[in-house]
Amino acid sequence: MYATRTKETAENVLIVGSMAFDDLELPSVNAKDVVGGAATYAAYAASLFAPVRIVAVVGEDFPRSVLEELGERDVDCAGVEHAKGKTFRWAGRYAANLASRETLDTQLNVFADFRPKLPASFTDSPFVLLGNIQPQLQLDVLSQIKTPRFVAADTMNFWISGERKKLGEVLSKIDTLMINDEELRQLADIHNIRRAAAAVRKLGPKRLIVKRGEYGAMLFDEEGVFFTPAYPLEDEVDPTGAGDSFAGALLGYLAAVGTLDGASMRRGLRLASALASFCVEGVGPSKLKAVERADVMMRVEALRTLTKTGG
Amino acid sequence: MYATRTKETAENVLIVGSMAFDDLELPSVNAKDVVGGAATYAAYAASLFAPVRIVAVVGEDFPRSVLEELGERDVDCAGVEHAKGKTFRWAGRYAANLASRETLDTQLNVFADFRPKLPASFTDSPFVLLGNIQPQLQLDVLSQIKTPRFVAADTMNFWISGERKKLGEVLSKIDTLMINDEELRQLADIHNIRRAAAAVRKLGPKRLIVKRGEYGAMLFDEEGVFFTPAYPLEDEVDPTGAGDSFAGALLGYLAAVGTLDGASMRRGLRLASALASFCVEGVGPSKLKAVERADVMMRVEALRTLTKTGG
Repeated sequence: MYATRTKETAENVLIVGSMAFDDLELPSVNAKDVVGGAATYAAYAASLFAPVRIVAVVGEDFPRSVLEELGERDVDCAGVEHAKGKTFRWAGRYAANLASRETLDTQLNVFADFRPKLPASFTDSPFVLLGNIQPQLQLDVLSQIKTPRFVAADTMNFWISGERKKLGEVLSKIDTLMINDEELRQLADIHNIRRAAAAVRKLGPKRLIVKRGEYGAMLFDEEGVFFTPAYPLEDEVDPTGAGDSFAGALLGYLAAVGTLDGASMRRGLRLASALASFCVEGVGPSKLKAVERADVMMRVEALRTLTKTGG
Repeated sequence: MYATRTKETAENVLIVGSMAFDDLELPSVNAKDVVGGAATYAAYAASLFAPVRIVAVVGEDFPRSVLEELGERDVDCAGVEHAKGKTFRWAGRYAANLASRETLDTQLNVFADFRPKLPASFTDSPFVLLGNIQPQLQLDVLSQIKTPRFVAADTMNFWISGERKKLGEVLSKIDTLMINDEELRQLADIHNIRRAAAAVRKLGPKRLIVKRGEYGAMLFDEEGVFFTPAYPLEDEVDPTGAGDSFAGALLGYLAAVGTLDGASMRRGLRLASALASFCVEGVGPSKLKAVERADVMMRVEALRTLTKTGG
């Protein structure tokens, strides 16, 4: 069922988003200067299944070795702008139960002046993941792509409250919106998830994916509702980037199978949930980037069993 | 797959717990003197599938019509003690999102001196649901039943912190513990659900069911982990009694199929999740008691589809 084309025959996934350094205060450990950012996590995940193109900006302090490592995974970093100054930096502290976090510091640095410019070789990208950046920048990226087959976007409370009009324009141009349940409620101004999803789909996106962290993820599309649980981990270390890994995995999977029907989306969600669980098991992307397809498929099977009554 | 015996051939389910009046401050409505209590909700749910026996206490103010109505559903109320005084009363206010509630008032009344005594005709009950009452009373009930086939128990934070020793004795004597995730974490003193479940199963219960409200329910047993989502409702009105309806439905289903293997438990959990969703759609047990088997089976099917990738 999960037979995908090899990466060589998969279509390309373009990812735009942040590349960053994170300082993480985790219940189990404190870690400084962890390479992170939405585009980084999403690229690690997607590149397990399809060739990836990143559009992002880094400063002079960003390690070349990371870009080289990404390159070895078929991640084309030609769209990563090297700007004068420091890389975007985020510092956060997680609660003991990892269920919430507080931002201790944000330094936009080179990200403040980020104006995504796509290399000519990127403009034919069929699969596009617009990471959580200013809606105008998401639109700028989209306008540079000729005929995308599938566009998914992420967003956040900050843009929902402050850039609603531009966000509305984004919504009218994408296939799939991927947000968490609180963002969905804020965007629709409806508490009930099901009715909120219906309201948001009327704003443009054919499909809505609601990320619910340890409680899994839901898909709302023309076939109805689909739900995948999160893989129940025995050891949760660091949820940073799990949502971005989820998004990257879904796009990578879709680019590999090349189909966008309801069954593909559902299988993609389950696979994305499986892959995101690995992300949570390590500090930063450490575990995520070590995972192989076979590991993911074992968890996909475990997720299938998890909701199967059998007999 | 869900073919159950008719109620006439199903085994008996004994339920011990509270019968009460609830004053509910809900986002959509305020309702006073709503007939509730764990035993009431569980009995309404279980009696859809099996004959039920209630052990509880009510005061002089409890409406005879409710007991008659239960009687018409094959709920034997011979174990309902009619005590001098007032029925147990609870008043609570729900948050706008229904995700949390605060207790405004608790009047134990006749429940304060409740010493469950089983009619002789109840002592052969094969399926037993020990509702959330003092652990010593759960033990007292259990000691009066000759050879139960299946015993499930509920408990709460109050007994976990205050009656841990007696609760330990209960745990050593039951098949299945049904609690919510915060109670599980408190009982095991472990945050991770999976490890907490393993620790609690070492205290006695062969199986652990974790109720997670709108996020569904999990079963931990010798076959592994099973998860059922909650049915995604479009209109949530009142979650009061949903957990008790869930428990009652599971026991009723098991008493109807008469088997306790992993597949039966898993199907039972899904069915319990389906039935509990109806409870949330009405104030008090109003919707729950109007539901028919066919309604439940449609939601069971919807829950199955919800986690199915298809294709």
